[in-house]
Amino acid sequence: MAKVGIVMGSDSDLKIMSKAADMLEKLDIDYEITIISAHRMPDVFFDYAKSAEGKGFQVIIAGAGMAAHLPGMCAAIFPLPVIGVPLSSKNLDGVDALYSIVQMPPGIPVATVAIDGAANAAVLAAKILATSDSALLERLKDYGKEMKDAVSAKADKLDKMGYNEYIREM
Amino acid sequence: MAKVGIVMGSDSDLKIMSKAADMLEKLDIDYEITIISAHRMPDVFFDYAKSAEGKGFQVIIAGAGMAAHLPGMCAAIFPLPVIGVPLSSKNLDGVDALYSIVQMPPGIPVATVAIDGAANAAVLAAKILATSDSALLERLKDYGKEMKDAVSAKADKLDKMGYNEYIREM
Amino acid sequence: MAKVGIVMGSDSDLKIMSKAADMLEKLDIDYEITIISAHRMPDVFFDYAKSAEGKGFQVIIAGAGMAAHLPGMCAAIFPLPVIGVPLSSKNLDGVDALYSIVQMPPGIPVATVAIDGAANAAVLAAKILATSDSALLERLKDYGKEMKDAVSAKADKLDKMGYNEYIREM
Amino acid sequence: MAKVGIVMGSDSDLKIMSKAADMLEKLDIDYEITIISAHRMPDVFFDYAKSAEGKGFQVIIAGAGMAAHLPGMCAAIFPLPVIGVPLSSKNLDGVDALYSIVQMPPGIPVATVAIDGAANAAVLAAKILATSDSALLERLKDYGKEMKDAVSAKADKLDKMGYNEYIREM
Amino acid sequence: MAKVGIVMGSDSDLKIMSKAADMLEKLDIDYEITIISAHRMPDVFFDYAKSAEGKGFQVIIAGAGMAAHLPGMCAAIFPLPVIGVPLSSKNLDGVDALYSIVQMPPGIPVATVAIDGAANAAVLAAKILATSDSALLERLKDYGKEMKDAVSAKADKLDKMGYNEYIREM
Amino acid sequence: MAKVGIVMGSDSDLKIMSKAADMLEKLDIDYEITIISAHRMPDVFFDYAKSAEGKGFQVIIAGAGMAAHLPGMCAAIFPLPVIGVPLSSKNLDGVDALYSIVQMPPGIPVATVAIDGAANAAVLAAKILATSDSALLERLKDYGKEMKDAVSAKADKLDKMGYNEYIREM
Amino acid sequence: MAKVGIVMGSDSDLKIMSKAADMLEKLDIDYEITIISAHRMPDVFFDYAKSAEGKGFQVIIAGAGMAAHLPGMCAAIFPLPVIGVPLSSKNLDGVDALYSIVQMPPGIPVATVAIDGAANAAVLAAKILATSDSALLERLKDYGKEMKDAVSAKADKLDKMGYNEYIREM
Amino acid sequence: MAKVGIVMGSDSDLKIMSKAADMLEKLDIDYEITIISAHRMPDVFFDYAKSAEGKGFQVIIAGAGMAAHLPGMCAAIFPLPVIGVPLSSKNLDGVDALYSIVQMPPGIPVATVAIDGAANAAVLAAKILATSDSALLERLKDYGKEMKDAVSAKADKLDKMGYNEYIREM
Repeated sequence: MAKVGIVMGSDSDLKIMSKAADMLEKLDIDYEITIISAHRMPDVFFDYAKSAEGKGFQVIIAGAGMAAHLPGMCAAIFPLPVIGVPLSSKNLDGVDALYSIVQMPPGIPVATVAIDGAANAAVLAAKILATSDSALLERLKDYGKEMKDAVSAKADKLDKMGYNEYIREM
Repeated sequence: MAKVGIVMGSDSDLKIMSKAADMLEKLDIDYEITIISAHRMPDVFFDYAKSAEGKGFQVIIAGAGMAAHLPGMCAAIFPLPVIGVPLSSKNLDGVDALYSIVQMPPGIPVATVAIDGAANAAVLAAKILATSDSALLERLKDYGKEMKDAVSAKADKLDKMGYNEYIREM
Repeated sequence: MAKVGIVMGSDSDLKIMSKAADMLEKLDIDYEITIISAHRMPDVFFDYAKSAEGKGFQVIIAGAGMAAHLPGMCAAIFPLPVIGVPLSSKNLDGVDALYSIVQMPPGIPVATVAIDGAANAAVLAAKILATSDSALLERLKDYGKEMKDAVSAKADKLDKMGYNEYIREM
Repeated sequence: MAKVGIVMGSDSDLKIMSKAADMLEKLDIDYEITIISAHRMPDVFFDYAKSAEGKGFQVIIAGAGMAAHLPGMCAAIFPLPVIGVPLSSKNLDGVDALYSIVQMPPGIPVATVAIDGAANAAVLAAKILATSDSALLERLKDYGKEMKDAVSAKADKLDKMGYNEYIREM
Repeated sequence: MAKVGIVMGSDSDLKIMSKAADMLEKLDIDYEITIISAHRMPDVFFDYAKSAEGKGFQVIIAGAGMAAHLPGMCAAIFPLPVIGVPLSSKNLDGVDALYSIVQMPPGIPVATVAIDGAANAAVLAAKILATSDSALLERLKDYGKEMKDAVSAKADKLDKMGYNEYIREM
Repeated sequence: MAKVGIVMGSDSDLKIMSKAADMLEKLDIDYEITIISAHRMPDVFFDYAKSAEGKGFQVIIAGAGMAAHLPGMCAAIFPLPVIGVPLSSKNLDGVDALYSIVQMPPGIPVATVAIDGAANAAVLAAKILATSDSALLERLKDYGKEMKDAVSAKADKLDKMGYNEYIREM
Repeated sequence: MAKVGIVMGSDSDLKIMSKAADMLEKLDIDYEITIISAHRMPDVFFDYAKSAEGKGFQVIIAGAGMAAHLPGMCAAIFPLPVIGVPLSSKNLDGVDALYSIVQMPPGIPVATVAIDGAANAAVLAAKILATSDSALLERLKDYGKEMKDAVSAKADKLDKMGYNEYIREM
Repeated sequence: MAKVGIVMGSDSDLKIMSKAADMLEKLDIDYEITIISAHRMPDVFFDYAKSAEGKGFQVIIAGAGMAAHLPGMCAAIFPLPVIGVPLSSKNLDGVDALYSIVQMPPGIPVATVAIDGAANAAVLAAKILATSDSALLERLKDYGKEMKDAVSAKADKLDKMGYNEYIREM
């Protein structure tokens, strides 16, 4: 049963939001991914948000650009954590979406991550689920170690070949 | 029958939003004013937005601060014009609300006015209604003349008394 | 007789502003489109704005970038609704135009839409006209349904083929 | 045993951050609150962040202003969710802290809430814990209902007394 | 005969804009000061801008806040230099007015000064007039020397009394 | 004898700043153009600014990006008008330069034009010189008429061929 | 002999900049403090900056608001480190000064500290001098320990009295 | 023995940060360059920052983008000067990193340079070391002269060939 719902308002968001799905797969977490526009199909959206708890979702990851109401409206209906991913669009570099997602009123928080930070939304979802899943916590720690080792390897490579050579190979 | 609905998410918005009501009264337009939070009572909000057309509303004026989803969600449901008033709050000077309200996606516009511009939202509602109400259009033109005369009177006063005296009287 | 005037200050705005014309055509609304610079031909501009009501325009859609005075100056003269489209230019992402258009003083509102949101300006014009045109209101509702169906179709496609395949096809 | 750690870098942050403690008490969640500066006492900070999992913390709420490194450095060490509260300071309205907290690099998310949104950080912590605590989930739903009833009461009051009277009483 | 016209859209701008008049008086330059709203009385405004050259104005100083179209519209009509003063208002710190005034399109420049910089607008007008008035140029140089001496006196005072004492006296 | 000095801090500014020279040539105004860095050669810069009046310059046009001190330092030394052109660079879209140039302290104004607005700086210089040169004023009016005719021609073309055809030809 | 020069353009900057002097005294570092305006007395400024090395200054701390050219012009002339303090003024929260000071062109860096961060400018000057003064380095470490102890004492106090009591005493 | 440590959090920062190394080589200053992530390997980072003084580093240059905690955390541990280089990333033009680096709290300054200003960070490091190294000070002065001569040569070239020719050759 899927524990995480990934939702976005348009398929133009899919390239960025798919990185959340990639990360959830890497961390072995069941999820569902779909496209629902809170603006273009408010009824469908309401059904989605209302039925999410019953379907067993424990976290919703919602990505949105511009006015970016989707994450906040999810948080108004779904009682468990909603993670918002502000998406950059043609103008404004995603600051519009960041403000729309993070500046929620008292009582209705959205856990906001970096602009275009879909992969991090999945890591945050995993951290949330790991509060009651010690096996997942171990996988998260393994992932942390993997990131550390990747940086260490780069540091070693830079040390060995010097920066000019390193850049030439990039 | 009320032709304009004024809605806001919290009574802390009332001082600013009441200026919309004042202006509608001045222009002799029927309206209803209420407080509905799209985030704290999404069901009530949905009913409001869905029933607005049936109740005879022709325009909705929605004021909101911070994440400011109320105007956009009204526009997602109500098929006639929605006017959004971005409200300034403690931080960010209302830029967060401005972006959340104005940056709507294709197909779902919100007619956005200035930050804290509730009176102008009412004037805009009147202009919209005046597209099919020539008596109201006359009242709008009278209001325009009144504004012009008020500035002219100030210009005359400045001319007569000089700026130092004028400022002292302010 | 045209009910909507589309005006912009330069033909460099035409690619974006033409989307307003496309949308008005789709919604079967008569319009006129022209180029008038409030800065380079203020007399011509004044004549345009003053004669607009007499020509039967019920809404003006004005697009402008940078200092973007055109929409506000239309609103100072034309007594019916003016919709402003802030256009992004080389620097500042259209924030300059957004502020110039939306921050109008008391009494002279401009109904502002998203940066580069010309199509939405047309939808808003249609909503305004639909306050007294039930056939147009039906066309607007059909358009809303069409948008909803388009998103639903994408959601189904994503559900069927999975996100990797979907992205590959984009 | 405390499940939530609240930490801030200075006692000047305490007035805002105490609202997180208030909310956790209201929702009947054990917490510890302390002052640790990642910049002025990095060793103490490291011990805190490293020992947090062993002490049984499941969520850390970290508030910080200006450069605001505390939440991100917690997230670098503590493997479970870290919630960041950007605090406004004398200049910049908290945008500096917001960017420092939300713009975390891949792999190390901070769940960011609104500027000065300490109470919402606590609600988010509760939602996270509620993913495995159905009694807490019920308390959260009760809190949601309470918020809704409070708005409804205000709407009724406004309806009864009118906005002029309502404002006079504020 | 007045060489400089000072114009603003509202008497709420008078306190700041009067500093331009003060400075012109100090530099012994004839001026006229008035209130004309380009938005509320476009006809009066057009007459003002069109007749300005005939009246002998060589420079217009126009102050405006928010959408701030007054300086740019003066520059569209008056063929000699227009100096724009962006005025801060309740929100946005005058950035809206700054962008509206400075970001003029090719061919129609406004000489923009600092936000609320009305006194500097007058100094700039004086510098412009001084390009053909050597007596005024001498007065400007005297004013420059006066400013320099004032700073020197402060430096001496600080040197003598020390900063603690200096601050205590402020 | 050159009446206008054009100066910039680096030859990377030349492509934009050359538009000022082009416009001065078009308006038949003598000028000198050079590269002087206030930061890299402060002595040379001081000599330039101090000798500018003696050489007969009546206006200096200074273009600068980033910290953009050149225009303001010219204005500190040269007693006649200095026009500043904020230049956009790799980051920040020229907002850094705009603030550095426009926000001058009392007594030392810089006449600031749009970001990258070098041609407009030349038009402004011409308007300044035209306060005592009626032949130049005529050339400026001719240029204004030329701009107006260019827009009119485009409006006619759009009217004749329709927007789809017009865009295809662009 | 003074090793650090503190300079600012106006005595209105003295309240903030005096905190740099306070900190240098605390760290037992000789300094001179003065007021010199690069804009109002460029000759005096040039002499100051040119003679600074000869007088034995090893670091200059320059505070400035708005266009804030003083630090950058010091750095153009004085060959040793210049520390810039962006000062907030009535509008823009010091962002104008921050950009003017930090965005220096290649070859001429200014070591920029936080907006209004005069005390930190002094700490940075001390760190610079400590690169060749081990006794000063010890005093800096003592100061660091003192800061740490102050936070620890607050943490203990909070732990003992609880946050409600702590806030009541603030 | 290396006197300057260059550190960055990711090899994606290497292209920009290598310019710091290039400049240190040009100025004949020993340095070490490495990649350490304060977020992904906090233990390694702590060891680096703690051992830096013992290894003989007198200055650390730290480059970071987005949340950009690396420079500030270095400054929290290393007692000598830390220079921070804000790096631009996909969104926000480096403003996020600038705020995170420059807005440090009292007692823990970071000497911040321009966005992407890695070469300037090296010049600043050289200026810091030159406070006790007169030979390096001479090399810095030679570098200053070299920069000046380069600009002079460009000015001469522009003077000789004219701007059209100059641009054509660029």
